[in-house]
Amino acid sequence: MNQESEIARLQEQLKVNPNDSKILNALIFRLLREGRTSEAIPFIDRALDIDATDIATLWHASVAALHTGQLEKALKLLYELVRLKPDHHEARDKIRFLHGRLIEPWHFAMLNDHERNAVFEAAIKAAVKPGVVVVEVGTGSGLLSMMAARAGAEHVYTIEKSFALYNAAKQIIERNGLSNKITVLNCWSSGVQVGRDIPVKADLLIAEILGSAILDEQIVHFLNDARDRLLKPGGIVIPQRAVLVGALLESKSLRERFRVDTVSGFNLSLFNALYQQPSLQVDLSQFDFKLLSQPFEIFDFDFQKTLPSTRENRFSVKLEADGVCHGIARWIRLFADSSHVMESKPQYSRSHWQQTVEIFEEPVSLRSGSQVEVRAAQLPDRVFVRLSPPVK
Amino acid sequence: MNQESEIARLQEQLKVNPNDSKILNALIFRLLREGRTSEAIPFIDRALDIDATDIATLWHASVAALHTGQLEKALKLLYELVRLKPDHHEARDKIRFLHGRLIEPWHFAMLNDHERNAVFEAAIKAAVKPGVVVVEVGTGSGLLSMMAARAGAEHVYTIEKSFALYNAAKQIIERNGLSNKITVLNCWSSGVQVGRDIPVKADLLIAEILGSAILDEQIVHFLNDARDRLLKPGGIVIPQRAVLVGALLESKSLRERFRVDTVSGFNLSLFNALYQQPSLQVDLSQFDFKLLSQPFEIFDFDFQKTLPSTRENRFSVKLEADGVCHGIARWIRLFADSSHVMESKPQYSRSHWQQTVEIFEEPVSLRSGSQVEVRAAQLPDRVFVRLSPPVK
Repeated sequence: MNQESEIARLQEQLKVNPNDSKILNALIFRLLREGRTSEAIPFIDRALDIDATDIATLWHASVAALHTGQLEKALKLLYELVRLKPDHHEARDKIRFLHGRLIEPWHFAMLNDHERNAVFEAAIKAAVKPGVVVVEVGTGSGLLSMMAARAGAEHVYTIEKSFALYNAAKQIIERNGLSNKITVLNCWSSGVQVGRDIPVKADLLIAEILGSAILDEQIVHFLNDARDRLLKPGGIVIPQRAVLVGALLESKSLRERFRVDTVSGFNLSLFNALYQQPSLQVDLSQFDFKLLSQPFEIFDFDFQKTLPSTRENRFSVKLEADGVCHGIARWIRLFADSSHVMESKPQYSRSHWQQTVEIFEEPVSLRSGSQVEVRAAQLPDRVFVRLSPPVK
Repeated sequence: MNQESEIARLQEQLKVNPNDSKILNALIFRLLREGRTSEAIPFIDRALDIDATDIATLWHASVAALHTGQLEKALKLLYELVRLKPDHHEARDKIRFLHGRLIEPWHFAMLNDHERNAVFEAAIKAAVKPGVVVVEVGTGSGLLSMMAARAGAEHVYTIEKSFALYNAAKQIIERNGLSNKITVLNCWSSGVQVGRDIPVKADLLIAEILGSAILDEQIVHFLNDARDRLLKPGGIVIPQRAVLVGALLESKSLRERFRVDTVSGFNLSLFNALYQQPSLQVDLSQFDFKLLSQPFEIFDFDFQKTLPSTRENRFSVKLEADGVCHGIARWIRLFADSSHVMESKPQYSRSHWQQTVEIFEEPVSLRSGSQVEVRAAQLPDRVFVRLSPPVK
């Protein structure tokens, strides 16, 4: 019997027994195998209504979620499946695959970044007094929330959009005996409401949602919203402040990691059009490099106040050495509070934040003692830094 | 007027003037803005039939392709759009975004890997005699095809699935004056037919589709197929052979990049469940590390012959030093031909292939002089290496 008539036969049977799980799953299986995912979905929903613990139904629902790009939904279904049937190896394989897609490996470098952990814990200890209520945006593993709870916070409400991280953090917090002090919420912080999701506005807001280029985890949007709605007037924000610092960079080996010119006598420079990312995260200590200028401050971000969505800055920079400038290196000076500061300065830092670079299309030769004009523009989620006039 | 009635009004107008581009694009714009992409698609198709050079239509078609996850289709439409209207900045921004999603930055490190380029060119020069027809699987930038053309090949047929790479390679080959010697095909090599897409079977097959773990670019599948169907019996394959080499690895700093244990007094080890990738690509020279054994050969891949899809290997390894074993490091010994060999051995190599590692869940202390059993399994697209009995 061909697929088409088999599917028709099962649909006929369903008319007689609309809630028969076996028929439903047989039909769903065939529809999914034929790639007819959208037709399968109503039957999957019906099967889940009948029995949300049926292994075949959960598996089919996760397959349909994957086919339609709903990775977090697929993960949730698979977690439930292996909770019910721990030896389902296909489900475990899919979970591993989804974790690889959804979880960035930098989490580990960050959690093992002892300097970061120390400055944040010092700032948290200084800010947490008895009775203090804490809200955190971006739970991650739960580490900073646990630090706040250990420091004596009345209660910590921590918000995590990723279901995988939310689920892991809940388990980690329980393992460390702090479940009664910490509530983990699985949503965007912009969806949290005081009075519904958290009882009162917080005294302390923790938002370690800084990427290597400061703005790349949307801190402007989420912190402005959370400070306005979830923090008491005059409440404390950790981190307090960050400065994006830059310097003119000479590094031929870095250029060769992101640009190609002549290779084996062939001109491959047209290939460069395929990779024009404005900001590239690198660990400069892996490369031979020289800074051609003193560090300069590009933008200062005061997290206690409303962050601007856009702004510009222009300044002139003096060359400290002769050299070929390949681009502009940038890093973070981070104030957890006014006394606890770290800086991901190239070569002097092992910070997981590393550095970011903007590479010029063409290197430019510069002379010690000369001045160049730098022009910086901040958008809500990134910063551009250019020589002015721009270097082609 | 609300969106719903505006959409209804435009649909009425279309009944009178079904081929009016302005009405079509107004309707498409509103449907896309409402997230009703699937309803918009038939109208987009109709608008493209009427005028495939209309800027608004091309833009809408690219938006719909993006919404439905068809990134390559979106890119193709946007290339056409900026060809017709070079100053369309939104389209250029989207192209930049899509390149960032579709093009891996390792291409640059690979193209600037002078040792790789030299051994491949030497093997190509030795294999190309007058009259030789070449087929290449995986064009990339076109570099190896240009080497074959320069060496005197009669003609080179090179096959690239990625539209972005195909498009760039065609331009690069033209820039280097070799368009009359090289034909670039934009499809999977498994879709190429002799007699239809290429005139004859080739004398030489080039397939530099090796990832850092050898199999991760599906070389087993694509090379077996291309050797069978596109190469003359007895034809040459470049590269000729690769050996996956391994060694027992001690590296606390590497472990801390991919695993977390106790941090600031909290037990975070449950976080490790979120990242269980079997093979991690690293540049070991970035880490403090020690190899605890002599290198051992895990699997030998003879590209001249049909590659097995699965196999196993077991052997014992002698410890050369006391140490804490955190996992198994692996690298490639690559024979472009029998005389031109390179090896991405940690610390001794600057190869872009770097190394891969498998990290044990728990480190294990081992004594110099003792023997451990190693068990390796090859699947079509990856290799697992474990201590036997497995280290938990």
